Amino acid sequence: MRKTSTRLADGRECIFYDRRPVRRSIQPDVRALSSRPDAARLRYDVATGEWVVIAAHRQDRSFRPDTDDCPLCPSRPGVPTEIPADDYEVVVFENRYPALTYLGAEPAGADGVRPDLLHSTSAYGRCEIICFASQHDVSFADLKPDAARLVLDVWADRTVELASMPGVAQVFCFENRGPEIGVTQSHPHGQIYALPFVTPRTARMLAQAADHEVTTGRNLFDDLLAAERRDGARVVIADEHWTAFVPYAARWPYEVHLYPNRRRRDLAGLDEAERDSLAIVYLDLLARFDRLFDSPTPYVSAWHQAPAGPAGDGFATHLEIFTNRRSSARLKYLAGTEAGMDVFSNDIVPEEAAKRLRDLTG
Amino acid sequence: MRKTSTRLADGRECIFYDRRPVRRSIQPDVRALSSRPDAARLRYDVATGEWVVIAAHRQDRSFRPDTDDCPLCPSRPGVPTEIPADDYEVVVFENRYPALTYLGAEPAGADGVRPDLLHSTSAYGRCEIICFASQHDVSFADLKPDAARLVLDVWADRTVELASMPGVAQVFCFENRGPEIGVTQSHPHGQIYALPFVTPRTARMLAQAADHEVTTGRNLFDDLLAAERRDGARVVIADEHWTAFVPYAARWPYEVHLYPNRRRRDLAGLDEAERDSLAIVYLDLLARFDRLFDSPTPYVSAWHQAPAGPAGDGFATHLEIFTNRRSSARLKYLAGTEAGMDVFSNDIVPEEAAKRLRDLTG
Repeated sequence: MRKTSTRLADGRECIFYDRRPVRRSIQPDVRALSSRPDAARLRYDVATGEWVVIAAHRQDRSFRPDTDDCPLCPSRPGVPTEIPADDYEVVVFENRYPALTYLGAEPAGADGVRPDLLHSTSAYGRCEIICFASQHDVSFADLKPDAARLVLDVWADRTVELASMPGVAQVFCFENRGPEIGVTQSHPHGQIYALPFVTPRTARMLAQAADHEVTTGRNLFDDLLAAERRDGARVVIADEHWTAFVPYAARWPYEVHLYPNRRRRDLAGLDEAERDSLAIVYLDLLARFDRLFDSPTPYVSAWHQAPAGPAGDGFATHLEIFTNRRSSARLKYLAGTEAGMDVFSNDIVPEEAAKRLRDLTG
Repeated sequence: MRKTSTRLADGRECIFYDRRPVRRSIQPDVRALSSRPDAARLRYDVATGEWVVIAAHRQDRSFRPDTDDCPLCPSRPGVPTEIPADDYEVVVFENRYPALTYLGAEPAGADGVRPDLLHSTSAYGRCEIICFASQHDVSFADLKPDAARLVLDVWADRTVELASMPGVAQVFCFENRGPEIGVTQSHPHGQIYALPFVTPRTARMLAQAADHEVTTGRNLFDDLLAAERRDGARVVIADEHWTAFVPYAARWPYEVHLYPNRRRRDLAGLDEAERDSLAIVYLDLLARFDRLFDSPTPYVSAWHQAPAGPAGDGFATHLEIFTNRRSSARLKYLAGTEAGMDVFSNDIVPEEAAKRLRDLTG
């Protein structure tokens, strides 16, 4: 894998990733970009113990641009985009409208300090966009296995690089796909957040794992994966290296968790064989999701990774992919019980969801 | 307030609430309804420690019926609805497609028992629909103060009655309004959940409050309300009995929390003066929400109440109302960071949201 880094007109970093050494003709970015926006703020919700990003400048971000104006396509003569080259395999660049930014901010110790009742701090961190392919009209599911493998390697590389930045507590790689979940750019892309705190969902998992270890002396994720493999009713795909299953208490109509059979902290910890296998299993999973309905399935695909340092010990990296679509005509909305109280209800029985996904072979 | 209870054709309870004693001509419900659906199941997510309702029968529920078929309108000759009377003020009935059901279930001790890796239990509890008015084409905001006061009294009455059922841990009263958040019935109505466990959001608040009490010896909600009143920048409405403010770390574009100035556990604990004032303040708040955009604002309005028993000591009942609308043309979606990791970001600065709402007087 070859990395070639450049800077965009406003100073943001842009990194080209290629499978083999190539000479990328990277042009200088001569766009007249306004200066990078003021850093956002993190505000602490003392009633729940959670941080919220307040990022007013994000109101300005582009909203479903026309294909001709896609900022994620390669630049063409006279039409400069966010990517200052005429082609690419995979490219990563700092988001122009970031929720979190490294700019001028001190690591603020968002974790471990007891904040005041009304407390804010710099929204320290970094938000990156990762373009999966230079072609505008493809999806991740359309990639060949070696192109998908490159994306996995880039996610792993970003995880290592961002986690090494001072003050970064956790790296989150994810893809939102489809207008039904609010995606504003149709070019195939994902996002990478380097966060200054451990996310609430990860913190809950770590607390459950710590509790399980005290009670049983064993690792929660190992036991859970073994239980799902033993039961089998919710397993969708299983090979030598990976197991994909609908979780027993699935919150979403169609939701799959994908674990490596050997517990790993993060994507960077996967070996060659696991990565090769993952590319194939993940493409298979995405293809099954797209066969669920009569048009492309909106989804969130979220890589859960261990927080940096000892805080992440015992965590098992895994993917959680889910759709908010219940049927061809209906979406699941998060309203009173979910958005108000974090109580999910799901109309689709997990064993039936798993059976459908198992049967949706190509 | 006068209560008149009857039973629907499939045995569900239906209760008419009137401000003054009236003779309601309640007809027998002669519809041929299929028997009540099998109880849903609660499944425990051992990875996060949260319960999920799996309710397959809810796939059958009606989806945006035509006005002529509205099941929440009073019955007309030859057109029986869920309400077996030709008029009503406020009516409550058990949901035909409940996520939680009392039917035949034993209180399963969802709280306090350490579940297995793959553990489920009866979805014990009760889900009620509350119709705010017999007219189909009005909103809560259109009610007169004395009609709104009746709804508040009904919520308080339901809270007491449902909390007294064995195995009920918490009563949650809420309204979802607008198709943009998935509301399938346009008739003005809310919902009431009697839950067999304390919701995750409430549990986090109670944990934060316990922590604050250990650290300071004081009540978190008292201190937070005092801090907001002292600061003032986010206060939207304040009168002798109530304070409405945009929370310092608001998660939603427009979000308001409404607290009684004297801490109360739940709606039933409000005195006469507080209830009279609440009807006026709440109607004012709803009217301001509806002036935000050029069409009715979708919202979730959620009453947070103390769990039953000592577990709820120190909790402060309050309303949390929010919209997922960022502007006339744009919604906020919960995608990767929110739905995947519970990390919210908000484009609207809370002080600016508060100023807009303060200025939106009638």
